Amino acid sequence: MAMVCLSDFEAYAKKYLPKIAWDYFAAGADDCTTRDENILAYKRIRFRPRMLRDVSVMDIRTKILGTEISFPVGIAPTGFHQLAWPDGEKSTAKAARAMNTCYIASTYSTCTLEEISAAAPGGLRWFQLYIHRNRAASQQLVQRAEALGFQALVLTTDVPYTGKRRDDVRNGFRLPPHMKVKNLEKAFEVCKMSLLDPSVTWNDIYWLQSLTRLPVIIKGILTREDAELAVRHGVQGIIVSNHGGRQLDEVPATIDALVEVVEAVRGRVEVYVDGGIRKGSDVLKALALGAKCVFIGRPALWGLAYKGEDGLQDVLRILQDEFRLSMALAG
Amino acid sequence: MAMVCLSDFEAYAKKYLPKIAWDYFAAGADDCTTRDENILAYKRIRFRPRMLRDVSVMDIRTKILGTEISFPVGIAPTGFHQLAWPDGEKSTAKAARAMNTCYIASTYSTCTLEEISAAAPGGLRWFQLYIHRNRAASQQLVQRAEALGFQALVLTTDVPYTGKRRDDVRNGFRLPPHMKVKNLEKAFEVCKMSLLDPSVTWNDIYWLQSLTRLPVIIKGILTREDAELAVRHGVQGIIVSNHGGRQLDEVPATIDALVEVVEAVRGRVEVYVDGGIRKGSDVLKALALGAKCVFIGRPALWGLAYKGEDGLQDVLRILQDEFRLSMALAG
Amino acid sequence: MAMVCLSDFEAYAKKYLPKIAWDYFAAGADDCTTRDENILAYKRIRFRPRMLRDVSVMDIRTKILGTEISFPVGIAPTGFHQLAWPDGEKSTAKAARAMNTCYIASTYSTCTLEEISAAAPGGLRWFQLYIHRNRAASQQLVQRAEALGFQALVLTTDVPYTGKRRDDVRNGFRLPPHMKVKNLEKAFEVCKMSLLDPSVTWNDIYWLQSLTRLPVIIKGILTREDAELAVRHGVQGIIVSNHGGRQLDEVPATIDALVEVVEAVRGRVEVYVDGGIRKGSDVLKALALGAKCVFIGRPALWGLAYKGEDGLQDVLRILQDEFRLSMALAG
Amino acid sequence: MAMVCLSDFEAYAKKYLPKIAWDYFAAGADDCTTRDENILAYKRIRFRPRMLRDVSVMDIRTKILGTEISFPVGIAPTGFHQLAWPDGEKSTAKAARAMNTCYIASTYSTCTLEEISAAAPGGLRWFQLYIHRNRAASQQLVQRAEALGFQALVLTTDVPYTGKRRDDVRNGFRLPPHMKVKNLEKAFEVCKMSLLDPSVTWNDIYWLQSLTRLPVIIKGILTREDAELAVRHGVQGIIVSNHGGRQLDEVPATIDALVEVVEAVRGRVEVYVDGGIRKGSDVLKALALGAKCVFIGRPALWGLAYKGEDGLQDVLRILQDEFRLSMALAG
Repeated sequence: MAMVCLSDFEAYAKKYLPKIAWDYFAAGADDCTTRDENILAYKRIRFRPRMLRDVSVMDIRTKILGTEISFPVGIAPTGFHQLAWPDGEKSTAKAARAMNTCYIASTYSTCTLEEISAAAPGGLRWFQLYIHRNRAASQQLVQRAEALGFQALVLTTDVPYTGKRRDDVRNGFRLPPHMKVKNLEKAFEVCKMSLLDPSVTWNDIYWLQSLTRLPVIIKGILTREDAELAVRHGVQGIIVSNHGGRQLDEVPATIDALVEVVEAVRGRVEVYVDGGIRKGSDVLKALALGAKCVFIGRPALWGLAYKGEDGLQDVLRILQDEFRLSMALAG
Repeated sequence: MAMVCLSDFEAYAKKYLPKIAWDYFAAGADDCTTRDENILAYKRIRFRPRMLRDVSVMDIRTKILGTEISFPVGIAPTGFHQLAWPDGEKSTAKAARAMNTCYIASTYSTCTLEEISAAAPGGLRWFQLYIHRNRAASQQLVQRAEALGFQALVLTTDVPYTGKRRDDVRNGFRLPPHMKVKNLEKAFEVCKMSLLDPSVTWNDIYWLQSLTRLPVIIKGILTREDAELAVRHGVQGIIVSNHGGRQLDEVPATIDALVEVVEAVRGRVEVYVDGGIRKGSDVLKALALGAKCVFIGRPALWGLAYKGEDGLQDVLRILQDEFRLSMALAG
Repeated sequence: MAMVCLSDFEAYAKKYLPKIAWDYFAAGADDCTTRDENILAYKRIRFRPRMLRDVSVMDIRTKILGTEISFPVGIAPTGFHQLAWPDGEKSTAKAARAMNTCYIASTYSTCTLEEISAAAPGGLRWFQLYIHRNRAASQQLVQRAEALGFQALVLTTDVPYTGKRRDDVRNGFRLPPHMKVKNLEKAFEVCKMSLLDPSVTWNDIYWLQSLTRLPVIIKGILTREDAELAVRHGVQGIIVSNHGGRQLDEVPATIDALVEVVEAVRGRVEVYVDGGIRKGSDVLKALALGAKCVFIGRPALWGLAYKGEDGLQDVLRILQDEFRLSMALAG
Repeated sequence: MAMVCLSDFEAYAKKYLPKIAWDYFAAGADDCTTRDENILAYKRIRFRPRMLRDVSVMDIRTKILGTEISFPVGIAPTGFHQLAWPDGEKSTAKAARAMNTCYIASTYSTCTLEEISAAAPGGLRWFQLYIHRNRAASQQLVQRAEALGFQALVLTTDVPYTGKRRDDVRNGFRLPPHMKVKNLEKAFEVCKMSLLDPSVTWNDIYWLQSLTRLPVIIKGILTREDAELAVRHGVQGIIVSNHGGRQLDEVPATIDALVEVVEAVRGRVEVYVDGGIRKGSDVLKALALGAKCVFIGRPALWGLAYKGEDGLQDVLRILQDEFRLSMALAG
């Protein structure tokens, strides 16, 4: 089977992953309205292509927080990569480095930060974290990440509690016994979301900043009001995200929310977006609407499920080719 | 089969109820456009979720007409609960009391008001009534309800005649011989809607108020004009309702009508809504748009059909959990 | 099978009519977009129902051109009723008279005007005509209709040529040998639409008026501009019609066009509408938007196909009951 | 099987063409959104038909760049006609001449310009070209076309690179060995799109004009800005086109883009449109929105696939009949 577009990887993953793993990755909250809307919203946007411009040479590199990446697509933080491929996040890190882009490693990785770093030395990586009830544990994670060369912290804000994903409830989803949320092994029992602190507020941004010299990026913003608050609290970046439609259902598609966030931010910090990217032209749309870079979640997992590091590189390369072509055709 | 969301109860009821009973509960008028629109209209509404608010402690209790309930979801008046479960409305009353919420008992119950009261002493109950051609009979019902401790009267206004529900006509729907509309046994022959008085007007509200010290709530309002009239006639509450889409088809979804009613009422009386509630987030949407509380109709019947009192409690508990989670995730 | 709503008659006709006849009646031009849009446009309109009005007595009679009918639904002109029922238009005339409503007999009837008149003496009937290349033939038809007591002339304006109905072309549709377009037998060869004169203009209205004392109604108007012209040329009524979507495809639904026609006419003449009426509530919508009366086309043919005169009466009675109920429920 | 409308030819071609050829002709870029939107956009446009106008005589001839054609539908440039019919573009040329309309021969023809000219001497033909990296080759083509009596040059601007058509990638599409892109045989290796020069800009229009006395028409314009630029650079005509949805997906439907282009051009040059024409009424819509003439792409190929020259004539004749009928019915 030829892997021509990202849907081919999706079909592959659906066919070959264990049902419980596929369901976990595919899950959306409640009716999955927002999960699907993330994609549909891109399809509604129309280009106004311009002709007869010299598109013989195109530079698709960009910089995020000052670091160059080969094209404006990074890997969003998602958990449990070993469910998709035995080497898990180590393969993800290798593929991201090979493609010279940014990988946001999740707290809920099935490899430790140390393993991830060792797998692909020198790769550009950010670390995604939650604030736990046990603040000392959060502090420890931040310091480990900083020490390992992670270049930014990505604070996820939309999980005071876990969203209701019906299939996961039906399946009684939990990690197979041979996989662990290794980053949390010492400080916590494994995989209990209730360890997250639902009382976190904007003031905790200051606390987080006090722990580290790394830039702080805030993930999960969907409104102009929160975007303004984020800027005022000194974050260096905002990821417009609805957690792939896995948290509160029936919130806006991220590409729709991006517009108001970009408008509110007025260039004061970088704005990124995740959710619903399935083609290179989606990337171009996001950039045209003000994003500095996009991040892919499920498509990265499909790539892993296909062929680990190589499969994820295939996914990224297809997106890169499609993005370059879209730029050329849009003038 | 795990009962994860309300649709699971619907599927169960559709599978296990006799067809004639399922059809009766599911029926909508004519093309069922409004019945379905009640649900679709909720799906079209988008949240604007706010992040980083302390949602560690949430109080989801509310008061309706001064009485506290555990969360803003009550049981709407629907008829013939014995079609769903042998103990009929007695089970409904028990479940409502167990969950500490309000149950609006229908005139067309298959248990008497006395049986309902005895089944769950101390529960918060309102009584739904029509105005009959035989006013003495209506008066008698009002006085029985008041004497039994029902705390409000809910006057249904959208049934001068019964809507045309095609499947009921095809099925020749009527109650099985062993079930009776017991509340009306003495005064009427059973189950003849034509006993309802189609000449009722706003002035009859005054007549109803003259019979009782109970607050009067008006059910079936869909327009700002009627909302204003209701307030002027001294009602204590309005239930925005289209009778589950069972009366006039192609009227607005209740969640859409709620907006104009709330605007017209300007806080002078409490406004509630029924129709189309299928998830905890629907409840949150209704409250965000000005409802004080919502009432569920068909989902309560599905709960009964599943396991009587316990099944209805399951339904209410799921809604409660989902509502709490939605509040947390919406900030 | 219980005949509960008009769709039941449609299903019956589709099942029992010869395919070539069903296809002919069901046909729409080109992609059938307008044929279907006629129905969908009604479904998009929402009622604003009012409560607590005295609906115990309702008068659903109306007058068209001064003559009372039992309710505001008449029979639109359609051709070839013998394709639906052996007695053809004679049965139609009987049913219309029995229900005390108006029947617009088509030039393309399979019974003569004389047979139609004789079948139901005293019934209210209008005569639909085209203007033929052979004006003397048209004049003869007008005079026959007037002499037979037809009370108005309905001039169809949207057939300078016959629309392209693909299934009819595929079927090679023509009348079976034992049926004839009897009204035209003397003057023409049978069923040649090309006998219609495509050079007819507004001035021919004056010519038509010069032939008769009967009021002239113009059928096929869809724009405010033509409505204004019609009034200026002295017609007594306008039927907003797109020929059931059988002529030019992708014109507006009639219920949508009705609004601008009614606005342009400003009460100077009566406005009627046909196309897409499938429920009593559709009739109410048309009246609420300014129509004096509606006419049904295909549903009448389904009624005939079901049981001739009795079947058509069933259809009319269902519409009448539904219309009365809708009025009551809408307040 | 009766060939009644263009969809019949589509169904035929789909059934009888080799899959790889069908896929190539049917292909759209990425998700095929724009390919399908080209058609859907026509369906959304509504006529406002006028009645009682003399439509007994209608002149459907028009002139494009001063030359009369029998009706405003020409043949758009598409490649590889031998995939549809053995005689390829020679049959196309014959059919176009027989119907007295314009055929835009593609650079990517499987017959030479000389063969095309010889097949139908005296026919009205334009020549579609790209600007190649090897400018001398482009110049040679222009001079051959001019010498052979082609009456205009059509410069395609939306192919700096070839769009991503997934099925072609999956099929590994390339011409069968016995077919050749004959026009390019001498100057190039066959069928390498990368020979096209992606650095072409508006200034190259001047270069093209310097090579020839033929009028230059620009194809692929979708925005008012580019339309203005085209006029300023002295082109004689604009074809609003999105390459049948084969280049950048999710650009506007051509009939939608036509409106802004016509508005920007303000009559200074002729504007044409291709893409999505499937019925005579589509032609009328395009003309009503300002197009001087439309061009058909895939339907011409379906006609060829059906019966070569005769099949294409059938397609054109159906469109002509439908167009004439639509004009009459729209008044």
